Amino acid sequence: MSENPIRYLIQEEHALRVAELFAALGDVTRAKIIAALLNGPMNVQTLAELTGISPSGVSHQMRLLRQTRLVSPHKEGRQVFYSLDDQHVAELFRRALDHIQHS
Amino acid sequence: MSENPIRYLIQEEHALRVAELFAALGDVTRAKIIAALLNGPMNVQTLAELTGISPSGVSHQMRLLRQTRLVSPHKEGRQVFYSLDDQHVAELFRRALDHIQHS
Repeated sequence: MSENPIRYLIQEEHALRVAELFAALGDVTRAKIIAALLNGPMNVQTLAELTGISPSGVSHQMRLLRQTRLVSPHKEGRQVFYSLDDQHVAELFRRALDHIQHS
Repeated sequence: MSENPIRYLIQEEHALRVAELFAALGDVTRAKIIAALLNGPMNVQTLAELTGISPSGVSHQMRLLRQTRLVSPHKEGRQVFYSLDDQHVAELFRRALDHIQHS
């Protein structure tokens, strides 16, 4: 086999940011939160009930997930609801589920 | 906003495996290796040159990437070439790149 021509080289900054994004998802608690949010926006209390994590534990993880722009908050009266930041996040997670279920 | 009906709940085992998959990608060295393999199959020497990691460092990372079925090896004479395990992996990585470039 001859070597492939190199058409694509990742920039250092992009490698760092993509690794940071994956690392944010590479935790079982955060994976459960993202999976729960595939159902639609939820508040911390519902996320805590669904994932079996304490509300303060969920809040802690939400800060990290917000920093990496995986989730975004929106206020509804006095409540804060979280949703997946964009359709990329849902598709990223679904593709990972596909991979583990078909390998 | 009313709460969403819960249509999807992730199984514990799937949450663990998906977190493990993301954690394998959540490292800047491994992100560079996966990015290089978007160009096609490569041997350790070429991966080392492209990523700036030593060949023994690349070999070490390849073991972890094989365990999580992100890459697969194939022999060509006495050489071992690695490629992304399946199209899911390439798409997973490309979606993550899309996310960081558009957020």
